[in-house]
Amino acid sequence: MKKDRANGLSLKEHEVAGNGLLDRRLFLLRGLQFGVIANITPTNSLATTATDIDLIGPTWMHEPGEPFSTYGEPSEHEDDVVRFPVQNEMVPGNGVSWTPLHLLEGTITPNGLHYERHHNGVPQINPKNHRLLIHGLVKKDLIFSIDDLLRYPMESKICFIECGGNSNAGWNKQPSQSQAGYFNGLASCSEWTGVPLSVLLAEVGLRKKSKWLVAEGADAFAMQMSIPIDKALDDAFLALYQNGERIRPENGYPLRLIVPGWEGVLNVKWLRRLKVTNRPVMARNETSRYTELQPSGKSRMFTFPIEAKSLITSPSAHMVLKGPSLYQITGLAWSGRGKISKVEISADGGETWGEAALQEPILDRSFTRFRLPWNWNGKPAVLKSRAIDETGYVQPERTELVKKRGRHGFFHYNAITNWHIDSDGFVSHVYDKKENETTDSDINIDSDWD
Amino acid sequence: MKKDRANGLSLKEHEVAGNGLLDRRLFLLRGLQFGVIANITPTNSLATTATDIDLIGPTWMHEPGEPFSTYGEPSEHEDDVVRFPVQNEMVPGNGVSWTPLHLLEGTITPNGLHYERHHNGVPQINPKNHRLLIHGLVKKDLIFSIDDLLRYPMESKICFIECGGNSNAGWNKQPSQSQAGYFNGLASCSEWTGVPLSVLLAEVGLRKKSKWLVAEGADAFAMQMSIPIDKALDDAFLALYQNGERIRPENGYPLRLIVPGWEGVLNVKWLRRLKVTNRPVMARNETSRYTELQPSGKSRMFTFPIEAKSLITSPSAHMVLKGPSLYQITGLAWSGRGKISKVEISADGGETWGEAALQEPILDRSFTRFRLPWNWNGKPAVLKSRAIDETGYVQPERTELVKKRGRHGFFHYNAITNWHIDSDGFVSHVYDKKENETTDSDINIDSDWD
Repeated sequence: MKKDRANGLSLKEHEVAGNGLLDRRLFLLRGLQFGVIANITPTNSLATTATDIDLIGPTWMHEPGEPFSTYGEPSEHEDDVVRFPVQNEMVPGNGVSWTPLHLLEGTITPNGLHYERHHNGVPQINPKNHRLLIHGLVKKDLIFSIDDLLRYPMESKICFIECGGNSNAGWNKQPSQSQAGYFNGLASCSEWTGVPLSVLLAEVGLRKKSKWLVAEGADAFAMQMSIPIDKALDDAFLALYQNGERIRPENGYPLRLIVPGWEGVLNVKWLRRLKVTNRPVMARNETSRYTELQPSGKSRMFTFPIEAKSLITSPSAHMVLKGPSLYQITGLAWSGRGKISKVEISADGGETWGEAALQEPILDRSFTRFRLPWNWNGKPAVLKSRAIDETGYVQPERTELVKKRGRHGFFHYNAITNWHIDSDGFVSHVYDKKENETTDSDINIDSDWD
Repeated sequence: MKKDRANGLSLKEHEVAGNGLLDRRLFLLRGLQFGVIANITPTNSLATTATDIDLIGPTWMHEPGEPFSTYGEPSEHEDDVVRFPVQNEMVPGNGVSWTPLHLLEGTITPNGLHYERHHNGVPQINPKNHRLLIHGLVKKDLIFSIDDLLRYPMESKICFIECGGNSNAGWNKQPSQSQAGYFNGLASCSEWTGVPLSVLLAEVGLRKKSKWLVAEGADAFAMQMSIPIDKALDDAFLALYQNGERIRPENGYPLRLIVPGWEGVLNVKWLRRLKVTNRPVMARNETSRYTELQPSGKSRMFTFPIEAKSLITSPSAHMVLKGPSLYQITGLAWSGRGKISKVEISADGGETWGEAALQEPILDRSFTRFRLPWNWNGKPAVLKSRAIDETGYVQPERTELVKKRGRHGFFHYNAITNWHIDSDGFVSHVYDKKENETTDSDINIDSDWD
């Protein structure tokens, strides 16, 4: 049995893939000992001794702490855990802010850090004066106040929302060196609660020719998007609550359309109008934007579902591993087509793959946290993660995606991300060697929000 | 077929219990029509017409909204959705603050609203100077920094924490007229992420006689609690993250012990020390408090698991129903012994019961949201909810609980709550008639936190 040189452990027998990837069931990692030996005499005494207190005795135990609060805030020592805004300077309130996925754990995104994508700022809506109109190809037009909507039966769903433009820096010729969340964090996951759209559409009564629904927001942009009526009837809902409390202004207060698993722009915020139609509205954001120019010269349109994707959040760009040792590789996987069925990790640039542990519960169209132990030997390595969803769809390598769709589609980038670890433990983003040979001109689109 | 007089619906056939309780599968409630008929001419035009805008045209569409933010806040129109602090004026920072469960939906409690129970305020800890010492009956004492702990393998669990003293006003002779959350909201539910305690106990190596673990917090109270080693090894963990982000100061930043399903006080905040022992420490909060005086004159001690409990959050105390109509009864159920298997609702004061729909996912030791449609006929009614967990335990009626445990135990009150709806739709808290005949003296304990 070969001993691991860093820890004196017998890890070789637990390897599941090349370059130190270990079995996902090897959960109890004996002998890590990241702590330091305490310089105290072991004792059976139950009392706190002066020695103990002196050893780690902090000043905050010497006097009463802060009082109770009616609404809590993060610690001041976490001030760097923030959304990162990137704005189009030409249009007020047009841009995005990124969720710092590389600084978060678990699957729920706290409300204060849910990503933003606005086209003309965040309207400050007084819910008493907000109305939802449902009209068009219906038997009777109805107007709902928020109080009206609060009386309807509700349902909750934990699901992700991902902007169709998330990770679009991946189309660039050179790999983005932003931190993982500031490159892939136009994706967040919450428990949303609201009224099933099917209930309200039954109230207004659909006419025979109804095929689409045009949703409109109450922002100054009057955001409009078209959604097939079948999806609306299937699982869309009008959310009033996010992670237990009422939705916050930047996430659509007081009312947001949730279209589970479909690109973020369809999840219209500040929802004020649903018009039932027989065709899509062909609004700006489903014609000039949120469409994808293909190598053929034609554009893809109405590319609604988010394809399976994954991202290693730790280790990831800008982090530094503290020498050869055991590490837990962890990240997020999601699919707009259902549940994640498997996530595979490679530590040797894609030569061999090991299966990661998926954190229960594994939920439909939701972030799934994956984890796998890795014994880093201190040599340069390339980490990859690959998501497979319950439809059997496999997250593609970047070369494969670029070959299929070219590099000018802007939207729906879901390729595998490579993290390179150098011999100092520093992590950076790299493409596969063959990817760097692309001769196509660069487009540098990562901050092109309009 | 009898028509419902309020809505012209045929609901009688869907009744599952007395006084208007309907089948939980009757989700699509046709004909509620809480909205008002829109006074516009139906049109097939896709364009937004002047008429539409004028109809509901809000001022916030006339100019760009607020800019992006690095960390979001709730709307100013939700300023009344707050924790409610009740403090012992004699001891700084000793008391509780209640989660407003009656104003929330879904199952996740947002971090800003997670309940608080402090004994001497909230220490403002600099994580760089915080240490965890594990010592006592171990093979080697170890000291861990937060950076050390962040290197260990983690796991996530969505679970509730409930204070052992939650709902203690229920022991009083007269029913509390506080809002549901301000009487039962020392219970909250989050996704916690951290290091399994079993991993760290393997690091220090348990000695033969180790039976208990004494956990100590780094607040000025130096909170100490004893936990059986078997539970510690089973599913306890050291949480660093709550709902994705690092734990907030009032919830234990930077490190909290999570003991799933066991009373809140064991989930020691600001964790600084774990001492492995062969007997409990007999600290103040496991002897003079968090023990329960029984009718026999003896006290129950170490009553760790939270028994199954449920609470209708809407309608609940202080709410007003807007006349005879269909309503969705909704609330939360939880058990410290596993999953909720069933919630039953009564609308006739306990004569008959109907089964509520449970919102998926139904998770171990977590809040479970239940819902059931109810056709209120406008007459006085008493609503009850009754939780049953996977062990078969049935949430007791108050008379049953009081008969068994007396009224001086203070802790672990989990009886069924009755909401009375009068003919004006006003909701108040009542006891069953026989409960009001109690002759025992009152103790008025609901604000007795020390």
